[in-house]
Amino acid sequence: MNDRAYALFEERQRDRGIDLGKVKDKLKALKIETPSWGYGDSGTRFKVFKQTGIPRNPFEKFEDAAQVHKLTGLCPSVAIHIPWDKVEDYDKLKQHAAELGLSIGAVNPNLFQEDEYIFGSVCNSDPAVRRKATDHLLECVDIAKTVGSEALSLWFADGTNYPGQADIRKRKGWMQEALTEMYNAMTPNMRMLIEYKFFEPAFYHTDLADWGMAFNMANKLGPQAEVLVDTGHHAQGTNVEHIVAYLLDEQKLGGFHFNSRKYADDDLIVGAHNPYELFLIFYQILDASLDADAGVRKTADNIAYMIDQSHAIEPKIPAMIRSVLNVHTQYAKALLVNHEEVREAQSKQDVLGAEQAVREAYEQDVAPLLLALREEAGLPADPMKAYLQSGYGESILSRGKGGASW
Amino acid sequence: MNDRAYALFEERQRDRGIDLGKVKDKLKALKIETPSWGYGDSGTRFKVFKQTGIPRNPFEKFEDAAQVHKLTGLCPSVAIHIPWDKVEDYDKLKQHAAELGLSIGAVNPNLFQEDEYIFGSVCNSDPAVRRKATDHLLECVDIAKTVGSEALSLWFADGTNYPGQADIRKRKGWMQEALTEMYNAMTPNMRMLIEYKFFEPAFYHTDLADWGMAFNMANKLGPQAEVLVDTGHHAQGTNVEHIVAYLLDEQKLGGFHFNSRKYADDDLIVGAHNPYELFLIFYQILDASLDADAGVRKTADNIAYMIDQSHAIEPKIPAMIRSVLNVHTQYAKALLVNHEEVREAQSKQDVLGAEQAVREAYEQDVAPLLLALREEAGLPADPMKAYLQSGYGESILSRGKGGASW
Amino acid sequence: MNDRAYALFEERQRDRGIDLGKVKDKLKALKIETPSWGYGDSGTRFKVFKQTGIPRNPFEKFEDAAQVHKLTGLCPSVAIHIPWDKVEDYDKLKQHAAELGLSIGAVNPNLFQEDEYIFGSVCNSDPAVRRKATDHLLECVDIAKTVGSEALSLWFADGTNYPGQADIRKRKGWMQEALTEMYNAMTPNMRMLIEYKFFEPAFYHTDLADWGMAFNMANKLGPQAEVLVDTGHHAQGTNVEHIVAYLLDEQKLGGFHFNSRKYADDDLIVGAHNPYELFLIFYQILDASLDADAGVRKTADNIAYMIDQSHAIEPKIPAMIRSVLNVHTQYAKALLVNHEEVREAQSKQDVLGAEQAVREAYEQDVAPLLLALREEAGLPADPMKAYLQSGYGESILSRGKGGASW
Amino acid sequence: MNDRAYALFEERQRDRGIDLGKVKDKLKALKIETPSWGYGDSGTRFKVFKQTGIPRNPFEKFEDAAQVHKLTGLCPSVAIHIPWDKVEDYDKLKQHAAELGLSIGAVNPNLFQEDEYIFGSVCNSDPAVRRKATDHLLECVDIAKTVGSEALSLWFADGTNYPGQADIRKRKGWMQEALTEMYNAMTPNMRMLIEYKFFEPAFYHTDLADWGMAFNMANKLGPQAEVLVDTGHHAQGTNVEHIVAYLLDEQKLGGFHFNSRKYADDDLIVGAHNPYELFLIFYQILDASLDADAGVRKTADNIAYMIDQSHAIEPKIPAMIRSVLNVHTQYAKALLVNHEEVREAQSKQDVLGAEQAVREAYEQDVAPLLLALREEAGLPADPMKAYLQSGYGESILSRGKGGASW
Repeated sequence: MNDRAYALFEERQRDRGIDLGKVKDKLKALKIETPSWGYGDSGTRFKVFKQTGIPRNPFEKFEDAAQVHKLTGLCPSVAIHIPWDKVEDYDKLKQHAAELGLSIGAVNPNLFQEDEYIFGSVCNSDPAVRRKATDHLLECVDIAKTVGSEALSLWFADGTNYPGQADIRKRKGWMQEALTEMYNAMTPNMRMLIEYKFFEPAFYHTDLADWGMAFNMANKLGPQAEVLVDTGHHAQGTNVEHIVAYLLDEQKLGGFHFNSRKYADDDLIVGAHNPYELFLIFYQILDASLDADAGVRKTADNIAYMIDQSHAIEPKIPAMIRSVLNVHTQYAKALLVNHEEVREAQSKQDVLGAEQAVREAYEQDVAPLLLALREEAGLPADPMKAYLQSGYGESILSRGKGGASW
Repeated sequence: MNDRAYALFEERQRDRGIDLGKVKDKLKALKIETPSWGYGDSGTRFKVFKQTGIPRNPFEKFEDAAQVHKLTGLCPSVAIHIPWDKVEDYDKLKQHAAELGLSIGAVNPNLFQEDEYIFGSVCNSDPAVRRKATDHLLECVDIAKTVGSEALSLWFADGTNYPGQADIRKRKGWMQEALTEMYNAMTPNMRMLIEYKFFEPAFYHTDLADWGMAFNMANKLGPQAEVLVDTGHHAQGTNVEHIVAYLLDEQKLGGFHFNSRKYADDDLIVGAHNPYELFLIFYQILDASLDADAGVRKTADNIAYMIDQSHAIEPKIPAMIRSVLNVHTQYAKALLVNHEEVREAQSKQDVLGAEQAVREAYEQDVAPLLLALREEAGLPADPMKAYLQSGYGESILSRGKGGASW
Repeated sequence: MNDRAYALFEERQRDRGIDLGKVKDKLKALKIETPSWGYGDSGTRFKVFKQTGIPRNPFEKFEDAAQVHKLTGLCPSVAIHIPWDKVEDYDKLKQHAAELGLSIGAVNPNLFQEDEYIFGSVCNSDPAVRRKATDHLLECVDIAKTVGSEALSLWFADGTNYPGQADIRKRKGWMQEALTEMYNAMTPNMRMLIEYKFFEPAFYHTDLADWGMAFNMANKLGPQAEVLVDTGHHAQGTNVEHIVAYLLDEQKLGGFHFNSRKYADDDLIVGAHNPYELFLIFYQILDASLDADAGVRKTADNIAYMIDQSHAIEPKIPAMIRSVLNVHTQYAKALLVNHEEVREAQSKQDVLGAEQAVREAYEQDVAPLLLALREEAGLPADPMKAYLQSGYGESILSRGKGGASW
Repeated sequence: MNDRAYALFEERQRDRGIDLGKVKDKLKALKIETPSWGYGDSGTRFKVFKQTGIPRNPFEKFEDAAQVHKLTGLCPSVAIHIPWDKVEDYDKLKQHAAELGLSIGAVNPNLFQEDEYIFGSVCNSDPAVRRKATDHLLECVDIAKTVGSEALSLWFADGTNYPGQADIRKRKGWMQEALTEMYNAMTPNMRMLIEYKFFEPAFYHTDLADWGMAFNMANKLGPQAEVLVDTGHHAQGTNVEHIVAYLLDEQKLGGFHFNSRKYADDDLIVGAHNPYELFLIFYQILDASLDADAGVRKTADNIAYMIDQSHAIEPKIPAMIRSVLNVHTQYAKALLVNHEEVREAQSKQDVLGAEQAVREAYEQDVAPLLLALREEAGLPADPMKAYLQSGYGESILSRGKGGASW
């Protein structure tokens, strides 16, 4: 049936003025990084429900990640979190990854799980704690060098819970000091991706609370520093795709932590809630990549797409497959926007026409296209089904309960 | 200095038409229940920073709670959480409390920390899990009988994370079944306080998501079921005092879980953020208690004021003292509202006059009044200072780290 | 091309276990009411941009509405707002509607645009104003009798802007008095649809602020009173489909005012923002309609679907066509949910399976189906295009500027 | 009584380590600008309730504003909005102001009330509209020169309602072009204050949606461009005082539009909702002004405090008096913070101590202080009462209904 479906799809897109060859090239180039910690136990403050079969160490996390890549063909790299993924021999981890067909992606320092960080890490008023935190940042640069990673992905839990608790302006300066030191330690091929967050775990002020603070910091540091957008880290109502377009225009969009949310930083499977938003983010990126301006194009083509979710009740590997496929789907739909049509309607201030031209792409069913692509690449038609039938899920049960968690 | 300050305060309130005698009577009758779990370690999903000196068992929790009561005179009862406070011999716990000058307050079932509850407790589609959950509710009724508690305080983490995950309407029915069974097991002197929550730990739908769902449940169950308002469990912008007034009018306001928030269910020290809201809640309660209608008065005089906070970075006992004093302060201010003046302005549709009449009370500095009351009662002038100087904080350090937590 | 597309669609749905015959029956039965005021000028507090060609009276509004029905076949009735649609001879209006193939739908009293209502209408502390407001409600019942309408749709702007401004509990009682009087005047075939709203134009408290208050009022009034859900009248994050499911279960869901929003009560074209939410609302309705319980089925089959938008920058008739088609599309998608599959996954607590079973329907492209239905019904393949080519838009320009507005 | 009250207040503050002399100096230097449009009719999109006695022209607006200054001594300047306050002879207006003891404050261009601006002003894709808008900006610079104003206060309603409606990145560039042209036309003593807004009247994207976008624009323009914070223009939960502290540190805080809100941009009397937030804003400003760094001090001492409210139901002049007094009160409280105590607690990471040190100032009743200051200045003890007794309100009734509005 898919042959007919694909033929019809092709015909329809041709009629819509879409060059499917280019669409497929773009889709083949799509890479989505999965996070090592996405394979471990996680949950809420109320309870982490431990699952059976959770990887017990970084090596096993890469094995699980390899399953996702094997079945989807989309996830050749895996982000690591230090010290969760601390190993004695990083070369060995790198080689293990390579044998699984993977590379090590962004290195994520962890500055929120040691007792010293109760009042902050790089923003702590205690210089010894700031030193420790900065040293950890430098350690992560070293690890990145060792494992061949070009991205350092920074999220800070730093903030306060009460008015007056700390000096907001001093903390701002301290963070800049620490990041400057880290920035100077990076090699020229490295990028520092600076994440911001509206709130949690800090409930009064968060030192990097929004894109503006991350952007300003990146501007001060230099061209190798960019902003990381976590799709769940905004106030309710925030137009995330606007921020994306803005950062693209400023050539400061470094990448994404993908997940979905309905309330706060819910960290659910990306695209599960309000999938249209994910589509619109890609629409902005693809629109920017069309523009003649070389600088903008460079940024739009160099965005790190990374999953960052906290699966509280889902089986880990299937949840990750679902996340990856959701991104795949929305990206494919965004590629079906006829930008000329949109722009012409925009130039005529035709509100309904322009809106419809964008929305029409979203309404397309891209299943025949994605299926065709998977067939071409020798991938299973239905990665989720293939996983469930593969026996892998059962094979890892022998790991027992109590694997890696955070 | 306070003698002069109090004299001036008295004069001023007399001029404002306030009967200070009545105010003091009301203040002397104020009781605020503290929660046993408020003395244990807690935190966010990212980290629980363990403190030294945390109570290791329910008995020690009561000892800490006794300090708060000793210094403030406001907290004669302590809420317990089962199984966190499960003991072999509840009589012994009750007696221990009595020796410390305390009684056991609301009994709180815990239906979110066992593996079976990953997909819900009383709303779980698995009848065996629902049975287990309902049995726990019945067990808590029994415990309440044993310890002489008259309040059962129910919060359910039940909900889902994704559209389609579960049958919302069936779950509604299952909850009603379980609560009906529990309701029927209660003795006539008991009250069931039903709490609702906007979100967390469920991120798509929460089975009791707002006051309307809790209220409707309480209505179906009968007169011994009432609504519990947790001040942090609402959508941003929600007018909590409106809900309070509404429930008072319906004679269904059972009590409060007090805490403050800026973002979600931040569970911070009550009154630390937007203290005016706490004042306005009390204003509504006191206004309702004035009305001739006996039913309304009954409810307004029978509200359970309970602290429910999750101190992530604060020392526990001082944080609890601060919470209690904040409630004391805002309640005292609310008692200074001249209701006749407000009502007269209201009847004239004098917007600014009515608003000012309420606000004026909030602007009063009640420190001289509260100090005078403490002196009369033989309590320390500054409970916080008294605690810090008492040596109690140091004495419990021998408990070490790793006490009770959730 | 659509023949092949439809054949493929049919094949696919058959494979998915969907009975397309039933789907088509349901789609043919769908009726969406458009509002007379949706054809007039509207805007924001900052500016109403007057358009040329706006209807100058209720008769012309019906003429415009007839265009939408003629082209979509979905909108046989039109809601009216009194006094905006006040005419000397309602029989004449009814007959005019009938000649256009339309009937008069819900009658909406207007209680917010006269000077007396500055401090509220049925909740005003001035009994004369309450009397005037109640009389207007009774007048609307009479109009409904005259025009043969069976629905009275009530929205109250009543509320306050400041703490203390008014007596919340008294206002609650006054509203109940007014609605009781109105309820008693209704004929047995009439329904009172009670709308709630989170905020605006009142910015401190709104007398009917949420579904719970509307529901409780409807319960007190009786079986002919039901709740009206305006999709834009909730706090950010509110799970609207949960409320829908809840009201269905209580047999108190009366109908909808459809629109979309990103921030507050933005009143934009329905389905333009977060279209998945609209789909999920229909999923809940259709799921409830499957259940054996006769009562639930009755309510689910008797829901008033009404558009209520405030087009600030869009041309009116095309915007309405777009709204109607969006509802059509999402309803069609929801009809493609395989409920058995969902329920089986739910019963196995298969989170990902259940979510996917619902989501899969949303991902279907229903264009071939809707096109086939339109062909069967002799409607234009593309109603929007047909409208733009019809010349109607040009023909009404002679009305000039300055038509009906609010 | 106030003599004793003030003596006690003085004693208490001395004990707290506060230098009342400095506090009084700061208070005497406080200036709050009122807006000409705050004296006219305003309302919501649902209704503008017209009041009797509203000024009919800019001259009468200044007369009303003069009342507020006469009674409070705090409001020597009045912001104007063009073309609402367009007059043939600006010299005459300036002289009229001077005779009333007033000067003309910030000049506010209006770019949202002409038909051409339906799709935006400086961001409109039509170059002719952008030209018109830019010309209006230049006209306002000229007016500022004429009336001796040094501040141009810019708010843009520009934005879109639907995804795809317009090219976000191009609009960003167009705004920059227009503001650059305006910036270059300013004289060296002028400041451009750039306002941002979360949403409304645009409901999908607003071109200057948050402080980050305004800040980045100001940075690009140069040192005479700064950010204007409207306290009602943020997403729910946003920590406004954090933004204030951040901008102070960047020396880019230009000023405020003061009002209060509970939901969206409610534009209510400042300090009426969550007054603690207003206090905390001043705390951050005063804290920054203490620091040795000359640059920061310069900004903190040069902030434009402006009221911007839309009184929908309140009498205009009394509402303005109330707003001004609320600012006065919270500013006075913030001056009572003992910064040394706060900083010492902060340096010890004493969360509760630092919070309490800030909060303690807020709990002071500053009425005796403000009364003493008014007496010293020969102002009425109670400006509101003085106004109500002055007869001015009655005298303006002869203006009739239908005065200036927007």
